[in-house]
Amino acid sequence: MHKIEHIGIAVKDLEVSNALFEQLLGVAPYKQEAVASEGVTTSFFKSGPNKVELLQATNPESPIAKFLDKKGEGIHHIAFSVDDIVSEIARLKNEGFTILNETPKKGADNMLVAFLHPKTTNGVLVELCQKIP
Amino acid sequence: MHKIEHIGIAVKDLEVSNALFEQLLGVAPYKQEAVASEGVTTSFFKSGPNKVELLQATNPESPIAKFLDKKGEGIHHIAFSVDDIVSEIARLKNEGFTILNETPKKGADNMLVAFLHPKTTNGVLVELCQKIP
Repeated sequence: MHKIEHIGIAVKDLEVSNALFEQLLGVAPYKQEAVASEGVTTSFFKSGPNKVELLQATNPESPIAKFLDKKGEGIHHIAFSVDDIVSEIARLKNEGFTILNETPKKGADNMLVAFLHPKTTNGVLVELCQKIP
Repeated sequence: MHKIEHIGIAVKDLEVSNALFEQLLGVAPYKQEAVASEGVTTSFFKSGPNKVELLQATNPESPIAKFLDKKGEGIHHIAFSVDDIVSEIARLKNEGFTILNETPKKGADNMLVAFLHPKTTNGVLVELCQKIP
């Protein structure tokens, strides 16, 4: 894990929040992308070596819709950049962390991703990201 | 705001969580520091250009104690690095954000800091950090 790849923030209305984060960060989003398998539309901002990802649910079964119902808008997850996601999953599993998807899946912004269950990470939903060449 | 300076995570027991995040991140904490004015003891991990800060309350009136009571352990805030915190506070105030402390204060790890109220930032507690030379 060699840096924070991004912070994921659950929002109700992507258009409203895009404007808000553009004011906050002083840059426009560089990309908007739907991830059908997760039921989300995402929007990405650069912050130097890091990114901020906004996530809006596209259906009521989306994990983001459930998060919004339960907790309201706010930080949803933290993603760390890794070079080899398969070996990192194996290392973390061996350390006792619960991996939510042991086979990495295709995420937004050209990444292979896997999530760790918050119950083993101090209530923090942790994502691992490996860039797809 | 030129990068994510750190992510702040509220924890109940710093010793337990230090061990957990050392396993997760693959590095030991580089610093532990009390911030009496905030009622916290902090612990810092490097993650490339970024940091992870663990926060444990030292008294029941600490904002971290209240956060733990209300929400349990998890991500507490996101901090962005800025070059000139005074001008950044002025810019953000002008954009309509609510600044919790308009005069920056001394935070952990040799930083001048200021917080933005989550009600104006999509439920996200945002911290600005300027390194003290």
